[in-house]
Amino acid sequence: MSFTLQQVLVPVDDGYGTVDVQIADSHISAIAPNLDVVGTAVDGTNKLLLPGFFNAHTHSSEMWQRGIIPPVPLELWLAELYEFAPLEPEQVYISALGTAVETLLSGGTSVVDHLVLIPGKELETIEAAVRGYKEIGIRAFIAPLIQDESLNAGIPSAGTEREHKAYLRSTAASLQLMQEAIDKFHNPEEGIYFLVAPTGIQLCSDALFEGCIELSDRYNICRHSHLLETKAQQLLAQEKYGCSAVEHLKRINYLSSKTSLAHCVWLNDDDIAILAETQSTVVHNPLSNLRLGSGIAPILKYRQAGVNVSFGCDGASSNDSQDLLEAIKIGSILHNVTDLDYHQWISPRESVEMAALGGAKGLNLGDELGSLTVGKKADLVLYDLTNLSLLPRTDPIGLLIWGRPTQAVDSAWVNGKQIVANGNVTTINVDDLKKELFERSQWVTKRQSKSISEIESHYRSVMGLPERAAKGYS
Amino acid sequence: MSFTLQQVLVPVDDGYGTVDVQIADSHISAIAPNLDVVGTAVDGTNKLLLPGFFNAHTHSSEMWQRGIIPPVPLELWLAELYEFAPLEPEQVYISALGTAVETLLSGGTSVVDHLVLIPGKELETIEAAVRGYKEIGIRAFIAPLIQDESLNAGIPSAGTEREHKAYLRSTAASLQLMQEAIDKFHNPEEGIYFLVAPTGIQLCSDALFEGCIELSDRYNICRHSHLLETKAQQLLAQEKYGCSAVEHLKRINYLSSKTSLAHCVWLNDDDIAILAETQSTVVHNPLSNLRLGSGIAPILKYRQAGVNVSFGCDGASSNDSQDLLEAIKIGSILHNVTDLDYHQWISPRESVEMAALGGAKGLNLGDELGSLTVGKKADLVLYDLTNLSLLPRTDPIGLLIWGRPTQAVDSAWVNGKQIVANGNVTTINVDDLKKELFERSQWVTKRQSKSISEIESHYRSVMGLPERAAKGYS
Repeated sequence: MSFTLQQVLVPVDDGYGTVDVQIADSHISAIAPNLDVVGTAVDGTNKLLLPGFFNAHTHSSEMWQRGIIPPVPLELWLAELYEFAPLEPEQVYISALGTAVETLLSGGTSVVDHLVLIPGKELETIEAAVRGYKEIGIRAFIAPLIQDESLNAGIPSAGTEREHKAYLRSTAASLQLMQEAIDKFHNPEEGIYFLVAPTGIQLCSDALFEGCIELSDRYNICRHSHLLETKAQQLLAQEKYGCSAVEHLKRINYLSSKTSLAHCVWLNDDDIAILAETQSTVVHNPLSNLRLGSGIAPILKYRQAGVNVSFGCDGASSNDSQDLLEAIKIGSILHNVTDLDYHQWISPRESVEMAALGGAKGLNLGDELGSLTVGKKADLVLYDLTNLSLLPRTDPIGLLIWGRPTQAVDSAWVNGKQIVANGNVTTINVDDLKKELFERSQWVTKRQSKSISEIESHYRSVMGLPERAAKGYS
Repeated sequence: MSFTLQQVLVPVDDGYGTVDVQIADSHISAIAPNLDVVGTAVDGTNKLLLPGFFNAHTHSSEMWQRGIIPPVPLELWLAELYEFAPLEPEQVYISALGTAVETLLSGGTSVVDHLVLIPGKELETIEAAVRGYKEIGIRAFIAPLIQDESLNAGIPSAGTEREHKAYLRSTAASLQLMQEAIDKFHNPEEGIYFLVAPTGIQLCSDALFEGCIELSDRYNICRHSHLLETKAQQLLAQEKYGCSAVEHLKRINYLSSKTSLAHCVWLNDDDIAILAETQSTVVHNPLSNLRLGSGIAPILKYRQAGVNVSFGCDGASSNDSQDLLEAIKIGSILHNVTDLDYHQWISPRESVEMAALGGAKGLNLGDELGSLTVGKKADLVLYDLTNLSLLPRTDPIGLLIWGRPTQAVDSAWVNGKQIVANGNVTTINVDDLKKELFERSQWVTKRQSKSISEIESHYRSVMGLPERAAKGYS
């Protein structure tokens, strides 16, 4: 599987160069002008080559509910999400494919799937997602979402007495399940990586975090969690620990260079210093943070403090898309309104570095992936610069990141294997995928969610919102 | 040119209905299930019909500089924009076509072009844009951008003595030019509408505003300006008038139900009450407001005050795209972080109404356009709901507004004439357009802008930013 990309545009220093790129044995073996052709020759004229980006946080099965959950904050949104969650592993397989297709066609070659497990069919859920990702060929990081507290434990009590039902699976059972899954599915050689992924402080006990740390150390695998996505979670951490969530996670040794944390909206300066010191990674999910009204993560502060930042789409029912270029654009320009000093603003080249190398570093793979470097694995994306959305010719990376390219991806390779050619995914039949998605769904407008109505009044009271009749969501 | 859309999905109340829609003599003549076929039958199965949206504020010729202007605030960005502005009317023709294509393929059937005029070739510039829009068939609102003060007058002086060069064209000459252009080009019957469009308080004298008001009244045409896009403009208004810009514009009678105002980021509650009272329209340009760090416009407050709001892409070098669906999505979800009470958040159906009827009202055409209503003009867009980005089937409007649809537009009609079919613009050759854009441009990374360096130090001082060496923008 050797090939040579000829006459391709690549970023060099502050400009661009036209070079040839040789790929051999799944790796980049040479980058220079006018190389000999090794293997197949691929014409790169008028095309831009970049390292593949990381969709560094998503929940693939949320694709089944995109477009439908009303505009409410996370705590209420989650109630509705879980009430209508897909219950068949085959659905998980299909939405893993859908998530992969949209990620690939928007510049991503890796996906971190914080995978929601179907109760009672946990291993089947993981198997279904792994099957989908292997079939399509995207590099996949499977992070099964575990918790050991029930959903309403995630809302601050604010001094009220509240009973929480026991979660359906014990702490020990979840850890046992993870160990089985790691033994069965963790296989980096084949592009499938396992992560331990306790959902976050709002629904996990210390025992669960500690069990995950032990697994992470024993198997040398990464850790992935949500962190302080909402103001409610910030309040909850104070109730639960008497200190910030970040201080607590540091105390129990969860934070490390192998730890990536989705959202990180409600951190203070001390918290940020702890992330820097522990070399933890922030995964920025700007679109879901807006959609759910969670807030604007202080990304410029993270960068100034030296914290590694990457981008995620988050699940497709809080976004409601899996378009990585959209997440990168909004996640870059959004912060220009939080700091008047434009010298701090993120440039398009910096965005590319965050999306590629930032993603790789967050998964402890900065030496193997994330840049056009001889010796690194060949996860590559070739963009067609003659696409209308990338014209007229100005700065190709500026056009790609700040524009809204559609169908700009010409080709993509993962580990040197081509899985997108001429703008189409080659490893699966996308028409069949569309047919499955179409036939397994129906147009709906209103769902009656019992869960939201059960918790809404308490939520509004805790958050200091005026009491009022529920809005008819439409 | 009669036709009947059969079995098409349309929004009704809180749900959807499957209906037939008859179009005769450029108007919607009937909407009901199982109508007789009048004219050509068009299959609408698995398609969603909506009124065409308005790209209610853009500057078409900025397309030539998209992707290239560094991340700086408006006042510096403008300096760079003007320094490298296109100087040939033929370029204006081409970028009008490009702007129209991207607008059409993202749900827009109308565009308001706040058109930058080439010095010395003003009428030729307008003629070139009009020619492009007529050729492609989009409904076009031509708003030639005029001013009578030079660019650096737009930065507050903050007590320093600053000399401003005289602007290249006198107030009287600009008004004379507008009158000639109105006589020559204003032709609503053919889909070309003229607007008076003094750029804004930062670069216009009262005499210019007053001359525009007179033309607007005499010819019954609308008024269009920028308003308080940046904090610097808010400071400038206080220096210039001793009151807010909105109070001043009210005093000189510029505000009316025929007035639409782009941006409106820095208004206070009193200003908002004035907009409501005068029935002025706010055009929300969320993407350029983020990209230029201008701020987040208080859109929820406008809606609560009863101010009409529509969406614009703004020019393609501050966005850097002309994708209307992107502007609508971000312009809707962005405000969920400014008000914790989710009962105030904008729902996808409300977004559609803002983008269609809000746009029409802002141009004093609420009775003729902007909704699927019998008797209104047939500016219609048909979306293909079998597109991957709109699957699985949930709430079609939720998917369209909150997702990131690509190639979702199947067909579009303006005034009953089809100009998009099967996802392609039918009235011009888009490949030729791409070729023109490609051949008239070159890939560049760094331009040396003299203008920015001339004003940057003063700008930083006025805005209270620390003195420091200019960043090497890349």
